[in-house]
Amino acid sequence: MDTEEFRKVGYRMIDYVANYFENLKERNVTPPLEPGFMRQRVPTTPNDDPEEWDEIFNDIEDVVMDGMTHWHHPNFHAYFPTGHSWSCVLADILSTSIGCIGFTWESAPSCTELEMSMVDWVGQMIGLPKEFLFLNKDNEKFKQHGGGIIQTSASECTLFTLLTAKRLKLNEGNINESDLVCYTSEQAHSSVQKAAMLANVLMRMVKTDENDSMRGSSLEQVIEEDVRNGLKPIYTCATLGTTASCSFDDLEEIGMVCKKYGIWLHVDAAFAGSALICPEYHSWMSRGFDLMTSFCFNPHKWMLINFDCSMLWVRDKDVLTKAFVVDPAYLKHDNQALAVDYRHWQIGLGRRFRSLKLWFTIRRLGVKQIQEWIRLTIDLGKQFEAMVKKDDRFELYNDAKLSLVCFRLKGSNEKNEILYKKVNNTRKIFISQSKIKDVYFLRFVTCSRLTKIEDIEFAWNVIQTCIE
Amino acid sequence: MDTEEFRKVGYRMIDYVANYFENLKERNVTPPLEPGFMRQRVPTTPNDDPEEWDEIFNDIEDVVMDGMTHWHHPNFHAYFPTGHSWSCVLADILSTSIGCIGFTWESAPSCTELEMSMVDWVGQMIGLPKEFLFLNKDNEKFKQHGGGIIQTSASECTLFTLLTAKRLKLNEGNINESDLVCYTSEQAHSSVQKAAMLANVLMRMVKTDENDSMRGSSLEQVIEEDVRNGLKPIYTCATLGTTASCSFDDLEEIGMVCKKYGIWLHVDAAFAGSALICPEYHSWMSRGFDLMTSFCFNPHKWMLINFDCSMLWVRDKDVLTKAFVVDPAYLKHDNQALAVDYRHWQIGLGRRFRSLKLWFTIRRLGVKQIQEWIRLTIDLGKQFEAMVKKDDRFELYNDAKLSLVCFRLKGSNEKNEILYKKVNNTRKIFISQSKIKDVYFLRFVTCSRLTKIEDIEFAWNVIQTCIE
Repeated sequence: MDTEEFRKVGYRMIDYVANYFENLKERNVTPPLEPGFMRQRVPTTPNDDPEEWDEIFNDIEDVVMDGMTHWHHPNFHAYFPTGHSWSCVLADILSTSIGCIGFTWESAPSCTELEMSMVDWVGQMIGLPKEFLFLNKDNEKFKQHGGGIIQTSASECTLFTLLTAKRLKLNEGNINESDLVCYTSEQAHSSVQKAAMLANVLMRMVKTDENDSMRGSSLEQVIEEDVRNGLKPIYTCATLGTTASCSFDDLEEIGMVCKKYGIWLHVDAAFAGSALICPEYHSWMSRGFDLMTSFCFNPHKWMLINFDCSMLWVRDKDVLTKAFVVDPAYLKHDNQALAVDYRHWQIGLGRRFRSLKLWFTIRRLGVKQIQEWIRLTIDLGKQFEAMVKKDDRFELYNDAKLSLVCFRLKGSNEKNEILYKKVNNTRKIFISQSKIKDVYFLRFVTCSRLTKIEDIEFAWNVIQTCIE
Repeated sequence: MDTEEFRKVGYRMIDYVANYFENLKERNVTPPLEPGFMRQRVPTTPNDDPEEWDEIFNDIEDVVMDGMTHWHHPNFHAYFPTGHSWSCVLADILSTSIGCIGFTWESAPSCTELEMSMVDWVGQMIGLPKEFLFLNKDNEKFKQHGGGIIQTSASECTLFTLLTAKRLKLNEGNINESDLVCYTSEQAHSSVQKAAMLANVLMRMVKTDENDSMRGSSLEQVIEEDVRNGLKPIYTCATLGTTASCSFDDLEEIGMVCKKYGIWLHVDAAFAGSALICPEYHSWMSRGFDLMTSFCFNPHKWMLINFDCSMLWVRDKDVLTKAFVVDPAYLKHDNQALAVDYRHWQIGLGRRFRSLKLWFTIRRLGVKQIQEWIRLTIDLGKQFEAMVKKDDRFELYNDAKLSLVCFRLKGSNEKNEILYKKVNNTRKIFISQSKIKDVYFLRFVTCSRLTKIEDIEFAWNVIQTCIE
């Protein structure tokens, strides 16, 4: 396809997606389909000969849109938000068209270096301790030891830091892999447990207090018992803003315990981390930051950046990047001593030019508008919470610290499970469910940039009409 | 930013990238810059207030393009190709705009199901045994046990299959992790060694024959010694088309050995796998396919698909997907028994709608045109190889089986290292280097769709002018 054809079809696709957004409200949020529906819509074998763009465009509705769960529908309130900015769509056009692979500095210098700049921009926006940034005082070489990288998701950040902590411990020598143990809250995201399974490290799920928060004393108790039994603690993952109920581990207490036992402390703030860009949330969320070893949050959740864009910072980049170095001849280059080669900071080798999404979006919006987005979605959550409070049939599971509202009908889990199914089966809104300490509840969070107060009211009405 | 502004800037970006490609030839392939150059070009702190698109577009050249290694420049001949089709740029516009996250069937049904269709399309194109496909005979449920998924890169495919093989072995009980051992060629890609390091499994690098091929007898010898010493072999990674010299392990022999010892056989055909779509390469490359457990290749290398798009197929999807299941409440849905939830097939949870790139590109081009691309690039390689053969000062490292040409000046490694540096320092072309069994050589492969025979001749001239 030559560039002339591309220009025409390119404009057409720009219009297509703009139309999609302008008309999103007319769709159901979720599709009333069963698994296997695609078999009727796509041939089982590929075509030998070319097809025209008209034919392909004509199939997009049937094959792609009709069976889609529309994450940016104004009535999508499930899971956690996933970011969306048109500036990211533009960045992806540029990134995909350049089509570079940034595994070493040499393979795509601006891909690596713009990412380093964005690591520092975002690190400052969320108010990380300066030690975590690349910031250098002069242009000759990097004097600081800290740094960061864009990964695909928090899962990879957790797994890579856990594997690094494990490698560091085993390097001490005379240690049996089966004696290693790591810790996290019983409320931690499933990806943390999965990381421990993938890493084959025993993981203790530490019980939480009445606020679903992992506390220092509980963690210490479990660690002491493990140490008494000859186990070797290597890693703790603390969560700021759990998926189930947006609860917060006590990072200061956890940090003191980890410091005492010389344990790597990783902080997973996948969703809540974006709120750190607002001083009123940074003031309490950042307590304990001086004690953490690594920090991760996902701009692709709540910071208006389209997936994928998860960010990981470390206090000491050498510790992270020297753990699993394989340096074949064809990847060597003259600047290895001075440059950052991001291949050493992640599981895989290849990586896209994702920092363009951050550069475009932060420049176009400015930090203040991103702060306003955080405040707006929290405010919409507060308004939904107020509606829940006004209705005697309902109760809150907890007080919403950020934009997630956890609520339920007073009474049995069963009636809430029924309500959940009925609400989502209307396909007019889409919410999530969860269960903590045997209490089942519903989750509601503002996700879409299209969501306004009228949509919050609409959602509440739908929920009410579903009560038996 | 509203959709009206997006349309305008969207068209502008379409034109920008089209212009980039039309004028690529006027640029150097690689930039004459030192690490740290970005510090002068991007402010150290982000802007509080919004900026206009004009300001941002004005900076793209300075911040992004000037410091780029241009992978699609007609004179880029390094590493391996990375795919590029305008149809993929269009697919990414759609994918990013929809902005769904496909971790479960429910979270984005068409994202999962189109991927399953594309797994089957591509699986048929490369002629995998039918057992590896999802293909079902009726629409009610999936009767076959095979299946596949799109991963980020071959690194993740290798790591995830290795971790699964490890988990399977440990599940047998009474096995010490430190007794596990896995095998690959001494020529295998660095990602295979890295996977073993990440997985903390002892890895044997099996010596290759005079064709840099791992043979069954060598593998068996190493396995037998390990078994005698009480170790437990769990996994072999065989390579079809090594990165260094595009050599091929003897899959039939390897397969027989793995079958004898009950070892998981993973085939890494990251680059060469695309050639399987041509019958003349499938005929010899596919020998031993009936013996493999899992197979991976990267359409994002040589099949005209933009990064990222690596594909993994397994003979038995339950074995893969039941190894590391963590199933929290908020991800449960009614269709879990029938549907595929891709979160269980990979390391992370979130994933993009990447199958759109395959669907758009295969439909627009048709299988025949993709075959023609493979043949064209192999032919250009043969023409380069012919130029090398005609020049008495040079010798081939090996005969090019596909599109990669490995060559060197007759004589010392040092004179070749000097030549390599001089060639790349012209910044007119970009080639790679490698070293096998103490023989240093240069690598040349056609990567860009813009490359024509005149560019091959130009590259050869540049190389000749660099000889001292």
